[in-house]
Amino acid sequence: MAGAFEELQQCLKRLPGLGHRSAERLALHLLVEKPESSRELADSLRRAAEVVHPCPECGNLCEEACCAVCADGSRNRGLLCIVESVPDLRSMERAGAYRGLYHVLQGKLSPIHGVGPEQLNLATLGQRMERESFSEVILAVSNDIEGEATCHYLQEEILAPFAVSITRIGFGLPSGGGIPHADATTLRSALEGRRRYH
Amino acid sequence: MAGAFEELQQCLKRLPGLGHRSAERLALHLLVEKPESSRELADSLRRAAEVVHPCPECGNLCEEACCAVCADGSRNRGLLCIVESVPDLRSMERAGAYRGLYHVLQGKLSPIHGVGPEQLNLATLGQRMERESFSEVILAVSNDIEGEATCHYLQEEILAPFAVSITRIGFGLPSGGGIPHADATTLRSALEGRRRYH
Repeated sequence: MAGAFEELQQCLKRLPGLGHRSAERLALHLLVEKPESSRELADSLRRAAEVVHPCPECGNLCEEACCAVCADGSRNRGLLCIVESVPDLRSMERAGAYRGLYHVLQGKLSPIHGVGPEQLNLATLGQRMERESFSEVILAVSNDIEGEATCHYLQEEILAPFAVSITRIGFGLPSGGGIPHADATTLRSALEGRRRYH
Repeated sequence: MAGAFEELQQCLKRLPGLGHRSAERLALHLLVEKPESSRELADSLRRAAEVVHPCPECGNLCEEACCAVCADGSRNRGLLCIVESVPDLRSMERAGAYRGLYHVLQGKLSPIHGVGPEQLNLATLGQRMERESFSEVILAVSNDIEGEATCHYLQEEILAPFAVSITRIGFGLPSGGGIPHADATTLRSALEGRRRYH
């Protein structure tokens, strides 16, 4: 069938969570059922791609000089919560159980997938540790092997020189499960049940 | 949080089949994980919106003067299959059980949703009936109340003057279920078991 249509369908199919049928359904919706939604989406994509960038401070999504969390004067600047990804940060924010700052690693150590310390957002973490005076760093990293390795690396290679209490998010988070799937209560109890790391 | 990001997420959420979480996941994928996919999708959308239009003959998706089915000289031009929508046509094509031509109604009669005969692709159907000499018209329209009303209208108001055999797709199609969800075997048996309409 049609080249440009098939191409759009293939393009949608490459996105996470979309199979053949849902990609076809979306493509038809965008082109046939609501053609105006097509331009809307294209404009919205272009605009977002232009203005959204990682926060130079913490790695969160950001459209200004720094992100909304870093810019928020009412946050507790003595607390730093280290998360793997922006979705993790957003889940934490939705739960509303945390009022400190964040640092987004943009991944976790995974030699098998070619992710070493250089691929993570670690340089700025060291700089922040030197510049700011955090009283506690909370490792809100998953408890699978890669998460454990990441916590170990963070403690040994980055956090060790600083007089800071290091805790690990813990109780309540299902083993092997990721932060984006946990409900607010689970995240709350994981925060409350955090324990000293090593 | 970020305005342009939220706007993209809202825009994605308005598309069929996407909820809050899947829209967020897609938006993050497009902006953070694979930023190059964002431009790809925007380009693909723009290109498709520019070139894809309904086939002036049958209403199928089309990027040339007429669609691939209408242009295909090997199709049986004595057979016309009337379907509600492009996804229905595409499901029929995937099943590979039909080698005639199509006419896409772009909906079905539904007074409650404000869909009358003027909203359907009927003018060109009358013209085609006058111009071509079909031996059989197959009504491949769903068997819910609106589908029944649509078939009735087609027979009484459009097809009656013509010496053509009118059949209705039938056996095997689950009652109340739509064509896009039927598997190839079901569609095949529905085609084979078609019965004379009135």
